[in-house]
Amino acid sequence: MTFETVTWKNGKVMVLDQKLLPGKTFYHAFDKSEDVAMSIETMIVRGAPAIGVTAALGLALAAHELKSHPLDEAQLLFLKACERFANTRPTAVNLFWAIAKLKNLSQKYFETTVDWCEALYQEAIRIHREDIEICKSLGQHGAPLMPENGNVLTHCNAGALATAGHGTALGVIRSAIAQQKKLHVFADETRPFLQGSRLTAWELLQDNIPVTLITDNMAGHFMAKGEIQAVIVGADRIAANGDTANKIGTYSVAVLANAHDIPFYVAAPLSTIDIQCSNGTQIPIEERKLDEVFEFAGQQIAPKGVHAKNPAFDVTPAKFITAIITEKGVLKAPYEDSIRQVFNSEGAINVR
Amino acid sequence: MTFETVTWKNGKVMVLDQKLLPGKTFYHAFDKSEDVAMSIETMIVRGAPAIGVTAALGLALAAHELKSHPLDEAQLLFLKACERFANTRPTAVNLFWAIAKLKNLSQKYFETTVDWCEALYQEAIRIHREDIEICKSLGQHGAPLMPENGNVLTHCNAGALATAGHGTALGVIRSAIAQQKKLHVFADETRPFLQGSRLTAWELLQDNIPVTLITDNMAGHFMAKGEIQAVIVGADRIAANGDTANKIGTYSVAVLANAHDIPFYVAAPLSTIDIQCSNGTQIPIEERKLDEVFEFAGQQIAPKGVHAKNPAFDVTPAKFITAIITEKGVLKAPYEDSIRQVFNSEGAINVR
Repeated sequence: MTFETVTWKNGKVMVLDQKLLPGKTFYHAFDKSEDVAMSIETMIVRGAPAIGVTAALGLALAAHELKSHPLDEAQLLFLKACERFANTRPTAVNLFWAIAKLKNLSQKYFETTVDWCEALYQEAIRIHREDIEICKSLGQHGAPLMPENGNVLTHCNAGALATAGHGTALGVIRSAIAQQKKLHVFADETRPFLQGSRLTAWELLQDNIPVTLITDNMAGHFMAKGEIQAVIVGADRIAANGDTANKIGTYSVAVLANAHDIPFYVAAPLSTIDIQCSNGTQIPIEERKLDEVFEFAGQQIAPKGVHAKNPAFDVTPAKFITAIITEKGVLKAPYEDSIRQVFNSEGAINVR
Repeated sequence: MTFETVTWKNGKVMVLDQKLLPGKTFYHAFDKSEDVAMSIETMIVRGAPAIGVTAALGLALAAHELKSHPLDEAQLLFLKACERFANTRPTAVNLFWAIAKLKNLSQKYFETTVDWCEALYQEAIRIHREDIEICKSLGQHGAPLMPENGNVLTHCNAGALATAGHGTALGVIRSAIAQQKKLHVFADETRPFLQGSRLTAWELLQDNIPVTLITDNMAGHFMAKGEIQAVIVGADRIAANGDTANKIGTYSVAVLANAHDIPFYVAAPLSTIDIQCSNGTQIPIEERKLDEVFEFAGQQIAPKGVHAKNPAFDVTPAKFITAIITEKGVLKAPYEDSIRQVFNSEGAINVR
């Protein structure tokens, strides 16, 4: 990769500011865990896996901040830090997965003589490194599903910018291209936050992957014209039955793909699957500030006084999903079974 | 109405600048027909019926400009003016309908002693006045199709701003509300030109009609939640079989409505029906500048060097259309028959 989304460097959490892209490539060097939490909350960093990794690194920073505190006080304050991170955003389950990992580890090490601060740092670094490996593995599993030669539509950004590297949906595309498949990406611009135009288009240009930007409402038109051979998206939370919460607009794309007999793939690590969520109705959907709808690139576009809605995600029912691509293989319907099987063979991955 | 979209005043064509809305309510006072043509070309005025009316008034202005020319020279120059207006935008058929009306009339009067300039002015004024009456009649026919109490989704702007007044899709909503129906409008923002947020939201606020603005990719989500009871849109050109070209994104909304068993209505005057077009594949689709996708108000939102597409319209096949609401009644499938019938009873309306 020509860029890193989030990393640990000299005791600081380096976060690429995704609100400034594509105009400016700027890294924050956070030395306070609260600033890292804020960077998730304000979407300086976004994308379910990237949020999980960033929270892990942020909690390693929190541990570092508490190093000199008496152990019982540090324990209490660390739990508070976990709570703070858990309150940044509600939908992406990777956030809660990463927090649970570090919280459980901290409780284990508080009771031993092990340097708990160092142990949490090592775990966060491991989660970061593992996320890239997971994406590459997921890419390998997904690549055979991509057409040999054709156009693939994606919505939002499920790329290297949404993970520690390589990406989920865009990771599959990267892996397929590495296998000499000739792919061209249609990127939905993804209002209101414009992850498609600002991030996906930028990220693919960095890697010289052919990309055409379209507004969200053009997807159906190009499907009807036979110009889209497959759709691939990421996920913020997948329920035990396969229902998938992802960026608002994903559901519309899935219905359109279904109506045009185009395969619709979800690419996500197992940490995005919430086996405690039996179906999509149980996934909390974040409602964001209405300014994002009223404004476009910082300019007021709607008349003052108008009402609006701004759900950040929607839920795509499992019946519209051709396959879920994970680092452990491609899951197919019935998802209750395929998801249960992969979790049984992997052990209880998704402890909260 | 609290505003007028386009009018004739003291020898000038007054055009409300729809590019400056909702921030600024500014009227151009055009005294040159070329400026009127330019206002259509650059979308200062847009909406199929409004374009037709504006072209008629612009050609009346052209006739006025040619008043002192020798008759044979005036005749030639007037045909050139007709050609200029015909080249402003390709998709909306009302433009060609209005031009044909004035061109045919001019050819008739050039051969008589009648004051052709005054005759064309009178015809343009008649077309303007008639457009408002047509919208009101269309509204009366469509109102019974609206729910007694519920949410109606619209895409783009098919309101008073897209006509000489009252509107087509929004005209039906206005008429239904006048009949005491309790309607609330969901307005798609309609990228890239943002007719929904800039125009529909503004127009409905002027009339105190309840409106909620959403981004285009939210429509499916709200349909799935059962929050949308009907969809109503305008049209730029309707083929003889009912296939309908309208603002890009309309097709996606129609497929989504179909998938959720929500009625999908098209509201348009008979002048929008092109009986010489047997089906949607024959409708020319305007491709606009890519800047509209890359930029907003001069601000670049996509990385430099990225490719994009910008079709201004798409075609919704007749099978997705529950009914076409016209000033002469509600047309139902099979549209070949219902359209032929209404044209036979009305005479050859759509001469080009």
